[in-house]
Formats: sequence, C-alpha cells, structure tokens
Amino acid sequence: MTLAAPQFTSDADLLGAMLAMGARAREASRLLSNAGPVRRTRALELMSEAILAASETILQANALDMTAGRSKGLAPSMLDRLELTPARIRAMAEGVKTVAALPDPIGTVLESWKRPNGLEISRVRGPIGVIGIIYESRPNVTADAGSLCVRSGNAVILRGGSESAHSSMAIAGALRSGLRQADLPEDAVQLVETTDRAAVGHLLSGLNGALDVVVPRGGKSLVARVQAEARVPVIGHLEGLCHTYVHSGADLDMAIAIILNAKLRRTGVCSSTETLLIDARVAPTYLPKIAGALIEAGCELRGDGRARSLCPMKAATEDDWRTEHLGPILSVAVVDDLDGAMAHIATYGSQHTDCIITRDNRAAERFLAEVDSAVVLHNASTQFSDGAEFGMGAEIGIATGRIHARGPIGAEQLTVFKYVVRGDGQVRPL
Amino acid sequence: MTLAAPQFTSDADLLGAMLAMGARAREASRLLSNAGPVRRTRALELMSEAILAASETILQANALDMTAGRSKGLAPSMLDRLELTPARIRAMAEGVKTVAALPDPIGTVLESWKRPNGLEISRVRGPIGVIGIIYESRPNVTADAGSLCVRSGNAVILRGGSESAHSSMAIAGALRSGLRQADLPEDAVQLVETTDRAAVGHLLSGLNGALDVVVPRGGKSLVARVQAEARVPVIGHLEGLCHTYVHSGADLDMAIAIILNAKLRRTGVCSSTETLLIDARVAPTYLPKIAGALIEAGCELRGDGRARSLCPMKAATEDDWRTEHLGPILSVAVVDDLDGAMAHIATYGSQHTDCIITRDNRAAERFLAEVDSAVVLHNASTQFSDGAEFGMGAEIGIATGRIHARGPIGAEQLTVFKYVVRGDGQVRPL
Repeated sequence: MTLAAPQFTSDADLLGAMLAMGARAREASRLLSNAGPVRRTRALELMSEAILAASETILQANALDMTAGRSKGLAPSMLDRLELTPARIRAMAEGVKTVAALPDPIGTVLESWKRPNGLEISRVRGPIGVIGIIYESRPNVTADAGSLCVRSGNAVILRGGSESAHSSMAIAGALRSGLRQADLPEDAVQLVETTDRAAVGHLLSGLNGALDVVVPRGGKSLVARVQAEARVPVIGHLEGLCHTYVHSGADLDMAIAIILNAKLRRTGVCSSTETLLIDARVAPTYLPKIAGALIEAGCELRGDGRARSLCPMKAATEDDWRTEHLGPILSVAVVDDLDGAMAHIATYGSQHTDCIITRDNRAAERFLAEVDSAVVLHNASTQFSDGAEFGMGAEIGIATGRIHARGPIGAEQLTVFKYVVRGDGQVRPL
Repeated sequence: MTLAAPQFTSDADLLGAMLAMGARAREASRLLSNAGPVRRTRALELMSEAILAASETILQANALDMTAGRSKGLAPSMLDRLELTPARIRAMAEGVKTVAALPDPIGTVLESWKRPNGLEISRVRGPIGVIGIIYESRPNVTADAGSLCVRSGNAVILRGGSESAHSSMAIAGALRSGLRQADLPEDAVQLVETTDRAAVGHLLSGLNGALDVVVPRGGKSLVARVQAEARVPVIGHLEGLCHTYVHSGADLDMAIAIILNAKLRRTGVCSSTETLLIDARVAPTYLPKIAGALIEAGCELRGDGRARSLCPMKAATEDDWRTEHLGPILSVAVVDDLDGAMAHIATYGSQHTDCIITRDNRAAERFLAEVDSAVVLHNASTQFSDGAEFGMGAEIGIATGRIHARGPIGAEQLTVFKYVVRGDGQVRPL
C-alpha cells in the first residue's frame, strides 16, 4: 500500500496544488461536456467495472482507515458508516452502473418558442461546470458523487473526510481508471488527497474561479464553516427537522405504520421524523395508541402539556422543537388544526421534508400547497425523501436552500440551462 | 414634497429597522404566495393604474433627483437614465400591465411520475420567498423588479441608487398602494429608503435569514462588494463581454447589418458586442467592408496584427480583449477557424452572450452547443439578449452565474420547485 496522502509544507504550496487541480478540472469539464451521452455512458460502465476490479485495493485501504478510526475511538455508528465489505463494494459498483443507465441530461431542450420576428429560442440543459463536493465519513459518497457528476457532464473535485481518506483515494483511483479506459480525461474526477483542513478553505474560496459551485455534505460544524467562509455559490444541505402531522381525518392504523417507519426505520438519516404533530380532535383516542407503539419499539417521547395530559411522557423543552434528534427520540405536540400544524412547521421546521396523514384530500392539498418544504408528502413516510426512492438513481444530498434546486440532488439537478437563439439575420429595432 | 429619506443615528438602529423589514417581507411572502394567480394578477393591474395615478408625484420626486444629480455633476448619460417624463412613466405602467398579463408561474407542475410502490411524485413550481434587489441609477427598475416579484409570488426588498432615491420612493409608494387596493400586503414590495451605504451591507448579510437571495444590478464596484461581502445566495450579473464571430460561411451583407446593430444600436447596454472575431479565410475580403461600415457609423476599431494588416486601425492591447467598452469602440481579432473563435471566447468572454454569423449550419450548431454562455445566437444581433425580446415581459437583469438560472431573469426565473409526494400509506422498506 502506498496510499499515504501528500502533505504540504506551506499553505502556498497547497494552494498552488489546488489551483492546478482547478485548472485541470476546468479543461476536463469542457472535454466531458462535449463528449456526448454515449461516451459518458461508456465511461460510467467502465468506472463501475473498475471499482469491482479494484475491490482488493479498496478493502486494504479501508482496513487502514478502520484501524486508524478504532484507535481514534470513533463511535460504533461512525465505524459502521466507514466500513467497506465486498458486498458494500459490489453495491457501490452497482450504484455507478445504475447512474450509467440513467438518461443523459445534457442537451435536453427544456422549452422552445418562436418570436414574432422569427427568432427561434430554446432553453437547453447543460452542465454547471466544475463542482466541489466536501463530505464526511462515508466513503461511498466518492462513487455516488463522482458518477453523478460524470453523468451530468461536470468535472468534480472531491474532498472527503480524513477518517475515510485511504478508502476514498482507492475509490477515486478506480473511477479515474474507468475514465482513462473510456478515453475521457481522468481529471474529470479529482480527489483532494491531503487531510489538511486548509484545503476546505481553498475550496470554499472557489479556487480563483475554477469552481462553479460547492456542495457540502456533513454535520453542523461543516455547514457553519461553509456559511461563514464560502465565496462561491453553495448548494447546501442544512439539517432535516422533519414533521409528521396526524390530521383529524387520519386513519389510525395508517398513522401508526407511517410514524413508526418515519421515526424509526433509520434514526440517523436526515429524512427521519423528529416531531409528531397530532390534531387535538383525534389526540385523545389516537395519541395513546401511537405513543404505545412507539414506546414499545424503543422510542423516547417528549411532549407538550397537552400531549402529556393524554399520555405519560417526558416534557419537551423549547429546544426539542428545534432539535434534529438523529436517534430514537420524538418530540410530540398537540395542535388545534391544520393551520396550527402548518404554523408549527413554519416556526420550527428546516424546509426539508414534512408529511400529513389524512383521508381528507382537501386538507391534504392545502398542506401540500402551503407547507414550504423541499419535499411534502401525503400519507407516506418522510424517509422516502431520497434520490434513489425518487427514481434518480443516486443523490449527493438533499438541498434545503431556496435557489437552483430543492430536495434530492441527482444528475439532473447538477445542470443548468442556456438559451440558444436561431435567426436569419435579425437585428434589433432601435 | 415630504419624501426625505429617513437616516439613522446608529448602525444598530438601521439594522433593527432592516430586520423588521425582513420579518414583514417574510410574512408578506407567505400571504402573496398563497393568494393565488387571480389575486396576484389583479394586484399587478392595480399597481399599473397606481403608477399612472401618481404621475405628478413621481415627476416631482424625479425633479428633486435631477436637480441633485446636476449639482453633483452626473454625466449626461447618467442624467438621461435618471430622467422620467410622462411618456416614460406611461411606459413603466405599461410594463407592469404586461407583467400582469404574463402566465402566473406558481403551482405549475413541471414533471410528475409514479414509482413502482405507487407513490406519485410531482415537481411543482413555487416562489423563492424574499428577494433583495440592489440596483443603481435607473428608477424604472423599481417598477420592473417589484412587478416581476409580485407575479412570481415573492416579496421583495429594493435598494435603489442614491441618485434616484426620491423617484424610487414615489414609484414604490404607487406599487404599494396597488397592493393595498388588491387587499394584499403592501410589504410584499418594500424600499430601503435611507441612502446610508451600510444598508447594502445588511442586505448582503441576509437580514438574519429573512432574505433568500440577493440580485445585484449595477457596475463593477457593486459587483465587487457583493462578491466580497454576500453571506446569502446571489443571482449575479457580471459584465457582458459579448462576441460576434463572422465565420467563413457568413453572408457579408448580413454580417455588416448584424455587427452594426450588435455594436452600435446602444453601446451602453450589457448585450452590445465588444469584440468582433473574423475568420482568416474571409477576413481579406470582408474585414475592409465591415470596418468601413463601422467607422462610417462612428465606431473606433482596435485590432490585432492580422486585422491591422488588412485595414488601418488602432492596435488592440491585451486589455482590450477583456474590456467591456460600453461605448463606440470595438476590438477586432482575426481567428484561424471556428475552434480559434471558440478558444478566444473561452479565454476572454464573460459567459453572457455570443453570436456566430454563418450560412454553414454544421458550424453554427457546433458553436451553439460548445460556446458556454448564457445566450448563444446564430445569425442575430447580440442585443436581442433581453427579457422583453425573449418574450418574458420584463427582466431584472441578465444572470452570468452558473447555477439556478442563466440569461434574462424574468418572473419564471424567480421561482424554484418543490416535490409533492402523494401516497396511500406507503412506508419505506428497511
């Protein structure tokens, strides 16, 4: 194994190396954008095969990360996210193959129209250009992000977490070898190999114009740093403070099934429900049953005064309404009605994913129209808020910002449009 | 006239007042978003009528700005941009009426699909939320920006230039009175009335989360300040360094007509051509004729060595290729071929608007696909790069960034999508 990350003796050296990466990425993005869909698909297939072919190398690299992680005392949940197995590597290669099978988004005509003067105007999809992705422990993000960027004609500069440094290098090496085999520039996928945290600062500065957008994917400290330092557009992912609202018209059995899944299927994901809102009209009969099912499944409940008058549970503090528990803890509030539920979500939500459970379609349609979140659901688990579940093949995160794209970011969301205007000598009147 | 702008004795007072504006804008945006298309259309019609009804007030306010501008020694071109006349006020009211007639973009289903598990997923257009617009001298931007934001269900906080402060206040007052008459919150359109430059800094900080995006519209010093200070997403407008390329397959008469228009129709707009590229195969016969027509029309030419060997003109410096002349000056370079032209544009262009003139459709299609600018044209003047010319009714600028939207920003570009998911009790498998 000769995977030791290069370290730099001065910040100027590091910056120089990163600016050179940026320049290579810019050139690679031009070539990849113009290569056409067939060659991009072939490259993705070869990238998938290259991951399988590199299984041994990836496992050895991952073993180095796991040893280092254990000696650093990483939590078991972190170690689990970090660990690669032959099955997980096969799943990673399968994921890249799925992205290879997705429709190529580049060149799609989104709309076209003709002006009275004869000009034909089209809005055409194209790549963003060069994308920087900053992420934390899970090494499979390297493969997801790399493949989605290639599918969308973008070059990418990846900056993984130091815990997964060896694994990410091995995976990025495989992706680059697939690109080479397809006769496309390997620099369409580059990994910042140093674990020096100054590298994140350079990415956030935009590498002198070489980066068109940065996508951070990580915990609160990363998000805070991005918000403070970024001098380049950001497609951001804040927290997922998701709500499930049991309306007075809800079916009780459906409500129990959805809430158990929305809270407990996985508690560490951003789409897990953190707060249950229940309508005052059904709370006396429904809440004891819902609470019973949750408690039996190992969930701790923290309720407001009205919830606790119906069911024994811990008192919720003001902080609980704002907390992404990311564990088997659920905040519970009784609300007067649909407006009360929407007001609670507007005050405390993170505009990520929110759900209403009801048989009353008029109430559902008001909720879907008026709750201003990236994903709003009617009668389905919040944990469906996911690129693969939406049919996008993969995702590099769930955007919670308000421009460009909201919700799962797949290949199509890594594009932008330009206008193509075809004339026959038109000049503009004075 | 009692239009004096309030000034604040401390920055904390100013910040407090602006945070209060932000909170009012947030609430107004919620009401406007949920008001529905019919009420937004009615509001826009009433806003248009209110501008006409306030003509006298607006003219008086404008006279104050003109007097101040003259005593400050503003250039005649600036004074012309600043001046309002009854005809210009009627045009402004007409512009708002045009926006009232545009289709309402909110609630449009962009795409929908059904998943194998029965979930029905739609991508639905909605407003961005609260938009901050920072602009310079022309007071009519107040009406364009205010009306486009109302059409798209967004609240807006406007910060005009100090030169047009009184005019903007009078116009904003009319827009707000139209909103009131439509029983919609007047705070959907607010104007920062103080001319204190610290107000721009507060807008760029995002007003504590109240602003979702800032749109700067102005010269280089504003753009530089936005790039240095913005802590909120920006839909930016950099300069328009536009090229027109005369390919070897161009029709000479068409080339002359387009270049005269692209350079000289108006020289102070961002879509005017700044550099003429001409193919070496036709330069010896075409350039003298094109140059003759331009010089006769009063345009100064600055050429590279090859251009000057064909036609007498001033020598272009390296700086000229990077300069938005914004006047009757044109840089001229002879290029070897299509690839040479595209390489020049990639090196020096600002990804705003670029044009190819040719009868060779294969060359044109390569140019349209590979030149990575917000607007690319074939056989038409670059000065068509404009929201009204594209059929958008109006625009608040031409975006030169690479996320969210490129090119003219109209009502539709002030929206974003969310996902609406309709289920019947689905839960996500483990």
